[in-house]
Amino acid sequence: MKKLINAPEDVVAESMAGFAAAHADLVRVVPEPLYVVRRDAPVAGKVGLVSGGGSGHEPLHAGYVGFGMLDAAVPGAVFTSPTPDRILAATQAVDGGAGVLHIVKNYTGDVLNFETAADLAAANGIEVRSVVTDDDVAVKDSLYTAGRRGTGGTVLVERIAGAAAERGDDLAQVAAIAEGVNADARSMGVALTPCIVPHSGEPSFTLAEDEMEFGIGIHGEPGRETLPLEPADRVVDRLLDAILPDLPYERGDRVLLMANGMGGTPLSELYIVYRRAAERLAEEGIEVARSLVGDQITALEMQGCALTLLRLDDERIELWDAPVQTASLRWGR
Amino acid sequence: MKKLINAPEDVVAESMAGFAAAHADLVRVVPEPLYVVRRDAPVAGKVGLVSGGGSGHEPLHAGYVGFGMLDAAVPGAVFTSPTPDRILAATQAVDGGAGVLHIVKNYTGDVLNFETAADLAAANGIEVRSVVTDDDVAVKDSLYTAGRRGTGGTVLVERIAGAAAERGDDLAQVAAIAEGVNADARSMGVALTPCIVPHSGEPSFTLAEDEMEFGIGIHGEPGRETLPLEPADRVVDRLLDAILPDLPYERGDRVLLMANGMGGTPLSELYIVYRRAAERLAEEGIEVARSLVGDQITALEMQGCALTLLRLDDERIELWDAPVQTASLRWGR
Repeated sequence: MKKLINAPEDVVAESMAGFAAAHADLVRVVPEPLYVVRRDAPVAGKVGLVSGGGSGHEPLHAGYVGFGMLDAAVPGAVFTSPTPDRILAATQAVDGGAGVLHIVKNYTGDVLNFETAADLAAANGIEVRSVVTDDDVAVKDSLYTAGRRGTGGTVLVERIAGAAAERGDDLAQVAAIAEGVNADARSMGVALTPCIVPHSGEPSFTLAEDEMEFGIGIHGEPGRETLPLEPADRVVDRLLDAILPDLPYERGDRVLLMANGMGGTPLSELYIVYRRAAERLAEEGIEVARSLVGDQITALEMQGCALTLLRLDDERIELWDAPVQTASLRWGR
Repeated sequence: MKKLINAPEDVVAESMAGFAAAHADLVRVVPEPLYVVRRDAPVAGKVGLVSGGGSGHEPLHAGYVGFGMLDAAVPGAVFTSPTPDRILAATQAVDGGAGVLHIVKNYTGDVLNFETAADLAAANGIEVRSVVTDDDVAVKDSLYTAGRRGTGGTVLVERIAGAAAERGDDLAQVAAIAEGVNADARSMGVALTPCIVPHSGEPSFTLAEDEMEFGIGIHGEPGRETLPLEPADRVVDRLLDAILPDLPYERGDRVLLMANGMGGTPLSELYIVYRRAAERLAEEGIEVARSLVGDQITALEMQGCALTLLRLDDERIELWDAPVQTASLRWGR
């Protein structure tokens, strides 16, 4: 295991300490119980957005805390859900009197712990709504989840719902926008290499030098099948063959196309992937109206990529384009 | 070799085609001869900034083309300098009548080809000044260079000189600011794994499972020495032990601290690195006034990191904070 870390048990706390030091203009990091909160939280009268989950997917979620996106992120241990007390503390910290939306990726531990935290928050007089993201078309039920997994679509939910909260939408409206984005987003990924959880020190799975894992999960959990490694264009076509018919996306649709890196893949390769995806969508008569290329939701140092499509309408485009000021997404302000 | 590519000879052209498609709001990519230019170039009356060099260091340089930074970037083949005709074409494309600054990393091929292009541009009536960056303290003279290598400081030169050009400084002023930033910047890096150039298919060097290459170059060329892999904090201290006395940086200095990923290292590890670097600088009485964490200048999928320090003054801070709108750095507009 080759990593730039100290003791494996200190990885999350030290990484968050560095994050706090680097982005003191945007966030505060509360060390105990650990969560990251927007610097000016709570914002009076604004719906608060809280997400979280196991660490190892950076920049998700801490990198998306700030103006126009999340109010707080709760990082668990690597690939391990945060406990309800921490989610509750973050929920209380961002409650500006307009209620709080929990954005939860569909993994069993996250769903349970966020539910418990929501119940505790309600008992403390905070109105909480939850949206569970499940955009990954690869598998239904898996090692970590019942139903589909939440992956790249989560980033888009956080951004678009975050913009809606920022413009003053109420909790029901923000929740409806989040649900809508999740319903119209689909993702699928592929891995060329496994990742190594610091505590275990062992690769999450094995792949031969000429193999890829198609439909990979963000914890290195199995995908649909192990296939021979192919040229990038063929890999992209396989991903879109799975994604496009699932909603389905249709001729005339406008979409946001996200080419996401899994953590260990160079940006130059993501643009090669993006190129073919955009070309294929043009062939299908689907218009790429917005795009995002880079590492957004990762699996430690895994090499690989995932594509996410989100169907857009005028309102979603307006919300996407609205100012955002976080460590990992920022524009227009 | 596991990469998300098609034919190795198409890597740069396809990656740039994807870049063009993803960022059509910011840039145009001219395919023949290949260069990337700010969408609104040439900007009349503004000094034009051109950089470039071998590909494989993304987001450098194409990711920094846009408002407040570079006017054009000229990507060569992977780890291979672009030819003078392409540098000339980019120089002509950004000439708004106020002259052009070439920002050149100190590698033999780049220096020669940019010099030739500058001569050709002068013969065509364009005033060109050049700044050669050489911020890497690791080695003097190496496989690719006479003198020190240009690495992370280049990003800071591009940003700060770019802001100076945007506010209307003339060519001599922009060149002086660029020279000053390079003179006050120092970098050093470490690799945990080699990288693989697509054409060769072979790792650039070998490291045992318990070794790191200390003082690595951005092409995988040798550093100072191969050492046993150590905890991140110790690695950071070693890097700063090399960087700090070199300028030297002194008690009371304000600096920009950049923790740069080499392409295959997860963001979470860069924050662990940043944490110790910031802590160490505080111990030394040096104030971190600005920071940048992430992949800025990479070596394909290499795992590792580099630290860059730049001494700041009020003017450099003002220029750093000024609006920038590129694919990989954007804020304030």
